[in-house]
Amino acid sequence: MTFSEKLEAAVREKKSPVLVGLDPRYEMLPDELKLADPHPEPERIAAAFGKFCYGVIDTVAPLVPAVKPQMAFFEQYGSMGLFTLEHVINYAQSQGLLVILDGKRNDIGTTAEAYADGLIGPGGTSVWGADALTVSPYLGDDSLEPFCQVARNRGGGIFVLVKTSNKGGAMIQDLIAEGKPVYRHVAEYVESLNATSDTTNGYGNIGAVVGATWPRQLAELREIMPKTWFLVPGYGSQGGAAKDVAEAFDANGLGAIINNSRGINFAYKKGPFAGKFSDWRDAVRAATEEMTVRLRAETTVAKLL
Amino acid sequence: MTFSEKLEAAVREKKSPVLVGLDPRYEMLPDELKLADPHPEPERIAAAFGKFCYGVIDTVAPLVPAVKPQMAFFEQYGSMGLFTLEHVINYAQSQGLLVILDGKRNDIGTTAEAYADGLIGPGGTSVWGADALTVSPYLGDDSLEPFCQVARNRGGGIFVLVKTSNKGGAMIQDLIAEGKPVYRHVAEYVESLNATSDTTNGYGNIGAVVGATWPRQLAELREIMPKTWFLVPGYGSQGGAAKDVAEAFDANGLGAIINNSRGINFAYKKGPFAGKFSDWRDAVRAATEEMTVRLRAETTVAKLL
Repeated sequence: MTFSEKLEAAVREKKSPVLVGLDPRYEMLPDELKLADPHPEPERIAAAFGKFCYGVIDTVAPLVPAVKPQMAFFEQYGSMGLFTLEHVINYAQSQGLLVILDGKRNDIGTTAEAYADGLIGPGGTSVWGADALTVSPYLGDDSLEPFCQVARNRGGGIFVLVKTSNKGGAMIQDLIAEGKPVYRHVAEYVESLNATSDTTNGYGNIGAVVGATWPRQLAELREIMPKTWFLVPGYGSQGGAAKDVAEAFDANGLGAIINNSRGINFAYKKGPFAGKFSDWRDAVRAATEEMTVRLRAETTVAKLL
Repeated sequence: MTFSEKLEAAVREKKSPVLVGLDPRYEMLPDELKLADPHPEPERIAAAFGKFCYGVIDTVAPLVPAVKPQMAFFEQYGSMGLFTLEHVINYAQSQGLLVILDGKRNDIGTTAEAYADGLIGPGGTSVWGADALTVSPYLGDDSLEPFCQVARNRGGGIFVLVKTSNKGGAMIQDLIAEGKPVYRHVAEYVESLNATSDTTNGYGNIGAVVGATWPRQLAELREIMPKTWFLVPGYGSQGGAAKDVAEAFDANGLGAIINNSRGINFAYKKGPFAGKFSDWRDAVRAATEEMTVRLRAETTVAKLL
């Protein structure tokens, strides 16, 4: 199966397009996972991150199609943090979740090949084993090719940054060149990669990251990228709401997965479910379920039911 | 001392602007470092990478100011590869070399903070301990700020991708917006960061990556970025020659470091020194010395003597 087919099957099975971010931050962990030492060693923090992520995975596995571990939060604690990440990827997949690794990696030539080879490819086809990886487009088409090739060969995928959720993204992404913004140049290139793809379900394996904080651009990009899966960050903590992401979906409730990291990971501490449960995992569950309910109410995701 | 001051001192001490890349690739390792097992485990390959990098470091430490480990080649072999990288960074610094980590990392908000906090900062101020890190600008100004702040606070630096050495870089970087190419928008932003920096030697701590394969743009960027250190890839294997990088230097032979990875790492196997020495490290030394000699002959680097 291609990555696109696996993603469609997972969204249909869970009847939800919610992508749960795994963004462990030491200061935000529930007290029961904090360490007695006020200045814990990186490897102790890494172990606490593992416990936290396993708890989130156990809770959301029946509810969502995929998780998105943010590499930065593991890399922050050195190779031991990344050792934990390897286990988290593996554990998530063992619980039936697809894993989209958020690394925003890229480089040129054989260096891009090394990233792609190491990171993308589930089921023992790569060392890290991710189902998909986020990649950055500044280095251009030849830098993206090795990622596309590895993804296709191994039933994996990539999500290329197109229009990011932060305000500063405008600095480059919104510059107008040849009559259209830079993000649209990237969007058209990504769509062209899917036009020639051998996918069978209407969507290709080369996705796009498009922020929930820009509803107008989301609609514009959905129109010009009919064969491209969207990974939509910015929901919740960053200000995007269910109605803002409605345009990301096609008429059947497919074509987009909507990420929520902090709003789910730390629901026990911030937001409408803070302080409402004795077990932090119950707040994770409540926030995940509420997000799915809202998306079903305000978008074509209802068609999945 | 600021990163810029450390870099100037190191270039003056070694009388060379050569930046040696550490790009270990298993198939390119000297036979004595290869493993008997035809399909070695990632951790065995990681250990062989360590030996190889220590050999390169021992050889070039008296000759050059800095090394640039490419994170992709370590990450390709999982957390054990990155465990080796931690040791390589530490060992290089113990031998008096500055370490510029080539990760082309970036993200937004607190995620960018996590990368910056974990990776940048020598002398125990960060987990990875790099003196500087390469970063990608597609996510815009607010994504770069956390890196700049951490770099300044810890005597570290960053190098922002401006005009990369590969052909495909043109796809985004050469688009003309508001009358100038995208790379020039990035260049002006980077230079503005150094204009307000508290550096004392004329150069700031926020550098730029500008490929040796584009001599005309190198000259253009040197002119509009007088306070910015250049990290220049593309010399040697990618086709750039000493005369092509001449414009990267100021009148005193400062302002740029010229990277060579494959041409030095694998000099025993490819190029003018292939097969000329019984010890692969002698080829590394010869290639490094020859590059410095050429730069002194054809650029203002001669002023360092």
